[in-house]
Amino acid sequence: MAKDKKFVEEITSMEVDFAQWYTDVVKKAELTGYTQVKGCMVIKPAGYAIWENIQAELDRRFKETGVENVYLPLLIPESLLQKEKDHVEGFAPEVAWVTHGGTEELEERMCVRPTSETLFSDFYSRDVHSYRDLPKVYNQWCSVLRWEKTTRPFLRSREFLWQEGHTVHATAEEAEERTIQMLNVYADFSEEFLAIPVVRGKKTDKEKFAGAVATYTIEALMHDGKALQCGTSHNFGDGFARAFEIQYVSKDNKPEYCHQTSWGMTTRMIGAIIMVHGDDSGLKLPPRVAPVQAMVIPIQQKKEGVLDKACELKDALCAAGIRARLDDSDKSPGWKFSDQEMRGIPVRLEIGPKDIEQGQCVIVRRDTREKIVAPLDGIGAKVQEVLEQIQNDMFETAKKRMENMTYTASTKEEFKEIADTKPGFIRTMWCGDRKCEEEIKDQLGGVTSRCMPFKQEHLSDTCIWCGREAKTMIYWGKAY
Amino acid sequence: MAKDKKFVEEITSMEVDFAQWYTDVVKKAELTGYTQVKGCMVIKPAGYAIWENIQAELDRRFKETGVENVYLPLLIPESLLQKEKDHVEGFAPEVAWVTHGGTEELEERMCVRPTSETLFSDFYSRDVHSYRDLPKVYNQWCSVLRWEKTTRPFLRSREFLWQEGHTVHATAEEAEERTIQMLNVYADFSEEFLAIPVVRGKKTDKEKFAGAVATYTIEALMHDGKALQCGTSHNFGDGFARAFEIQYVSKDNKPEYCHQTSWGMTTRMIGAIIMVHGDDSGLKLPPRVAPVQAMVIPIQQKKEGVLDKACELKDALCAAGIRARLDDSDKSPGWKFSDQEMRGIPVRLEIGPKDIEQGQCVIVRRDTREKIVAPLDGIGAKVQEVLEQIQNDMFETAKKRMENMTYTASTKEEFKEIADTKPGFIRTMWCGDRKCEEEIKDQLGGVTSRCMPFKQEHLSDTCIWCGREAKTMIYWGKAY
Repeated sequence: MAKDKKFVEEITSMEVDFAQWYTDVVKKAELTGYTQVKGCMVIKPAGYAIWENIQAELDRRFKETGVENVYLPLLIPESLLQKEKDHVEGFAPEVAWVTHGGTEELEERMCVRPTSETLFSDFYSRDVHSYRDLPKVYNQWCSVLRWEKTTRPFLRSREFLWQEGHTVHATAEEAEERTIQMLNVYADFSEEFLAIPVVRGKKTDKEKFAGAVATYTIEALMHDGKALQCGTSHNFGDGFARAFEIQYVSKDNKPEYCHQTSWGMTTRMIGAIIMVHGDDSGLKLPPRVAPVQAMVIPIQQKKEGVLDKACELKDALCAAGIRARLDDSDKSPGWKFSDQEMRGIPVRLEIGPKDIEQGQCVIVRRDTREKIVAPLDGIGAKVQEVLEQIQNDMFETAKKRMENMTYTASTKEEFKEIADTKPGFIRTMWCGDRKCEEEIKDQLGGVTSRCMPFKQEHLSDTCIWCGREAKTMIYWGKAY
Repeated sequence: MAKDKKFVEEITSMEVDFAQWYTDVVKKAELTGYTQVKGCMVIKPAGYAIWENIQAELDRRFKETGVENVYLPLLIPESLLQKEKDHVEGFAPEVAWVTHGGTEELEERMCVRPTSETLFSDFYSRDVHSYRDLPKVYNQWCSVLRWEKTTRPFLRSREFLWQEGHTVHATAEEAEERTIQMLNVYADFSEEFLAIPVVRGKKTDKEKFAGAVATYTIEALMHDGKALQCGTSHNFGDGFARAFEIQYVSKDNKPEYCHQTSWGMTTRMIGAIIMVHGDDSGLKLPPRVAPVQAMVIPIQQKKEGVLDKACELKDALCAAGIRARLDDSDKSPGWKFSDQEMRGIPVRLEIGPKDIEQGQCVIVRRDTREKIVAPLDGIGAKVQEVLEQIQNDMFETAKKRMENMTYTASTKEEFKEIADTKPGFIRTMWCGDRKCEEEIKDQLGGVTSRCMPFKQEHLSDTCIWCGREAKTMIYWGKAY
């Protein structure tokens, strides 16, 4: 009975305490578990199954663009990490160091990879000789470790799972093209598969990746109006190539430095799914990423024939290619409804003696709670249609919310007031000066630049902060 | 031209130097690359694609038996590793220790996981309360680190990729059943997917896993007559449950200790594929695991229409569900044949002007070099049929070789002579005493017990070594 109770308990309302709501959902939907390893998490089956779906779809999209998967070592010798100056400055303070192997102290300590630019560069320096060897468009799926001080499941943890793409090209143009191409893969994936609308743009110099010439990002807005950086793509120019001596002989027989990119997306996306779509009843999974898309829940299941019919219904859904399950546990239907809602399963199908008599069942949408009475005949196609509708509606709902929470400021006072009172994105013009960016962060309670969007608009001629000539439109926000 | 040359160079013959032949194949088929991280390797696209196919098929077979995937941390606090006495003794000498996070020294050092029994046990101790929570049948795909002194690509490296299944059950019977079930999954997978015949059996107490009550294994025979342990499945009884306090309340409301298993298969299987199937022309991939199953090679490709027709042929194969590629590079056909053979692609399809005239092409089997002239009409089905035949023939060939290299010894002298002169498995009776096992290893040049096979035969009444009463038939061999 203790276990039964756990589920029907209310979770904290997101209006009351968004952070606690998030923690409650992660726990009650059984996405993660506790571990003694500080700052790390156990990803439980319900959480990992979401990651598997993300992986499969991203991997498919990568391969369509010619990406090949590889695997490089977990450890990076200190001397290798130090080869690119900006990079080591960015990462050295937050890596974990291996100093002993078995009972012996290592001659050179090694860090657990926080990211693998240095390993890939070292590898490419040996594997690239001629223009015929280029480009190389490699990716790896792995975990990385960053010694974060404050952590939250999925959003920021010491260890997280991700993919890191690392490419090497003959020309600067080709590298820039690949950087943008992969950012668009992330953006399309987020919008089409996770139903998460994003803003695509470029990071400021202050916010770009350690060692990059340019960093591009997709930024999403959470339910509480905070921004979440969802995926980044970096153009390194020839910086790493010069530090690691990655040269190729060109067609006209001259030695040239290569140009490189890297791009990554992480388990943080599970946090984004929770915070963009969830509500006070729990998780809401977009159908395409949902490990279970439909839960069949029998009503009065002890009555003869009900369970058999419910099982038939589940089989019919599976046969139509829907990831369906039957909840035939001895819990009450009400408990099962709450459980299915908490876990974010996109639809449930209720079926009881009366429904069976009338050859029908009741489809209940998780996103809108709308009830649809549907004949059992042809139920597979009907549920497919409803799932498709839910996927589209969830994206449209999230998009409208993002639009409603995106404000435009044309004066400094307006900017301050919005930052103070209205959570969300704030669009302004900006002079491009780092000083303004830093003052804004200090004086507006942690508002940071999110990106200079690809879709530019001319809002005014002057920088919102210093009044000098504006160079770009920029998005600001408080971020996770 | 330097690059052209690299491939047509002969590799070392396996008769001359098997170890060098292996190294040559791994390098020239571009399966791995060099890294500065000692004892580790880069798995390049051609190698990683094999692992992806292994993963996909194993994962599918696991899930059919109810396995769910999870992810647990990379690091294990020292105190956790030490909780189970036998286990820590087995692994502590070969783990890598993390002592610093960023600039700070850790209060307690942590090792990079060499295997995750301790983490799973710690997790289960918190997550299992009642018989209703059982069984839990979890698996994770990850990398592990063991500080090996001598390493070889795929066969033994400090870091390797694997899956580790960890399950927890209410009863000893159920745990034993799961242990055997997973061993059979490995055996069937090896034979059906990798065309590698195996002997299924139980390890001796001396050879079992650190902390296990019983270890089961599948053992395969390489081309040189050495044995390779291909997958193991362990029954832990309630040993870890007692050390980690994993208890559940039974149906009749009593506290009981759980019973656990673990089982793993690694990137070592890529080494097994090379050493079971390969020949002096390179790799030979069984069609089911081959990332590329068919290579179309145009003859006189500069003649009008040849490339177009070759491309059509490739498309026809892809449309039939075959993983096909076209080699339209500017190399000679002879170079392309050698390259396709080196990479172990199961069939090549040669198509030139004369073939086109006659509406045919030539299928060449990698395993037997047999040439099959086939009409272009219906080529997809024909190649599918040939691939199926290759898969079966490769298994039968390997099986016959294993049978031919499996010897039975009935006297000590015979045992010594076979061990000295005939590489392969040696079957004998054994008393079950560790002392005999140790003497055999010392006196027969490193011959170790491989397993006590499930399929027992009564060869004689007495132990081959000491002459006392025999308890079991056992397989011996020199192993990788």
